[in-house]
Amino acid sequence: MGRHAVLNGTLIKADEATLSVQDRELQYGFGVYESLRVIEGKAVYPEDHIERLFHSASGIELRHQFSADQVSDWLKMLIASDNLEEATIRILLMGGMDARLFITAGVLLTYPETFYLEGITCVSYRGERLFPQYKTCSLLMNYVALRHASAAGAFEALLVDRNDRVLEGTRSNVFACAGNTLYTAPSHEVLEGVTRDRILKAAEQLGYPIVYEAPTLSGLAESRYDELFISSTSMGALPVASFDGIPLARIGTIAHPIHALIRQWERDALH
Amino acid sequence: MGRHAVLNGTLIKADEATLSVQDRELQYGFGVYESLRVIEGKAVYPEDHIERLFHSASGIELRHQFSADQVSDWLKMLIASDNLEEATIRILLMGGMDARLFITAGVLLTYPETFYLEGITCVSYRGERLFPQYKTCSLLMNYVALRHASAAGAFEALLVDRNDRVLEGTRSNVFACAGNTLYTAPSHEVLEGVTRDRILKAAEQLGYPIVYEAPTLSGLAESRYDELFISSTSMGALPVASFDGIPLARIGTIAHPIHALIRQWERDALH
Repeated sequence: MGRHAVLNGTLIKADEATLSVQDRELQYGFGVYESLRVIEGKAVYPEDHIERLFHSASGIELRHQFSADQVSDWLKMLIASDNLEEATIRILLMGGMDARLFITAGVLLTYPETFYLEGITCVSYRGERLFPQYKTCSLLMNYVALRHASAAGAFEALLVDRNDRVLEGTRSNVFACAGNTLYTAPSHEVLEGVTRDRILKAAEQLGYPIVYEAPTLSGLAESRYDELFISSTSMGALPVASFDGIPLARIGTIAHPIHALIRQWERDALH
Repeated sequence: MGRHAVLNGTLIKADEATLSVQDRELQYGFGVYESLRVIEGKAVYPEDHIERLFHSASGIELRHQFSADQVSDWLKMLIASDNLEEATIRILLMGGMDARLFITAGVLLTYPETFYLEGITCVSYRGERLFPQYKTCSLLMNYVALRHASAAGAFEALLVDRNDRVLEGTRSNVFACAGNTLYTAPSHEVLEGVTRDRILKAAEQLGYPIVYEAPTLSGLAESRYDELFISSTSMGALPVASFDGIPLARIGTIAHPIHALIRQWERDALH
């Protein structure tokens, strides 16, 4: 945890970044958020994250008084005040009569190299996100699904909708590959991840065709896909070794080059 | 707002009842809650509310170290410390490695007598609650639906599921009447409200047959019901004058005697 936090542009002590349990917006979870990476002392793609934060806010009609330039400045202020070289930063925008914007910092979330080389395991969970296009505080299903996954020894739960489509993970986007072709949910049905967007661009650059159809549970159960990977800001592109106990034929054939490329782009963007 | 609050059995100042925005369970909304009334200096049906709180916790596998007797004692402690004669008390149980139980007090939530005499207005909202049987902090849809209702000048939004059934309101249960017969959703598909339970008992005692079938949107649009009312701890049984702009033929014919009876039972239970 960082030493400081920012509340509406004011630097405060990190332990003063609190909400009253009697706060109506806290009680209803009327808020939106973003997580972003700080590497080499700089935020990665801050404009994209701030834009999506505001997109989420407008999607649930959360009115606020903040501008993208302000939030960008406040990110820099926190990074400078705490001398953050590497960190995961969280921006939380709570609605209400007076909207409040918190920026807090924690350790940089990373995963062991073996996760990328050997792949991680996923299980399915039946459920559909509320307002899937927006990154809101409505996360109870994700919490419960992720806990079911952990109890089963898996790293992530992939959410399966009423039509048997695997739309996304509890904290990740999902890509399945058949041959060289990527299958992923249509953009309007999932959270348009900042990293998901980079992965689609990387796939294009690397010559992998993209089909905007979500992989299906039955397709995965019948091994109709050769490869599966998930993505997030923290993960990049992370290969899946098995899903619901069924091993994938390939680990990282497509995910590895994509991961390398998007991480390279991140570093390039800092300079 | 009361002067004090209770956190895990310890009396604290009300403004110290806070959660860090970096608290993982806050971020995921991994909590359950109850609202209860204090009248004549006593909590109304505290055992029922505590039992339901624990039922909700167990429903989402929120483990905690608290007993019903403890929570009951803490309710009394807060009522005594703040000399509460009339209040609405909220119990919030947040999960995590160390579960935390907050008890806070606010003004007694009441509604004008005209609401009962003239009825209130409701509008429909398409949506289904996550974990409908449990009273969880996953309330963003309720918040958004209620705001749509307010923007339309209505008092409450009634949630309509994918099969056109009107299961419940954003903060209420729903009952429609055709003749003397009550129609309401099957208990396992909605929050089994403490007040809903009393309404069902009152209907039985007053001789109104109950059919456990949710009223339908088309049935309401075609005026196949004569009367509609909603219920909650704060409302009791509150008649609906119009739904989606369509007036109901009767206001309170069944709701009024039921309301009077359940409020009488409340007072009886205090002595």
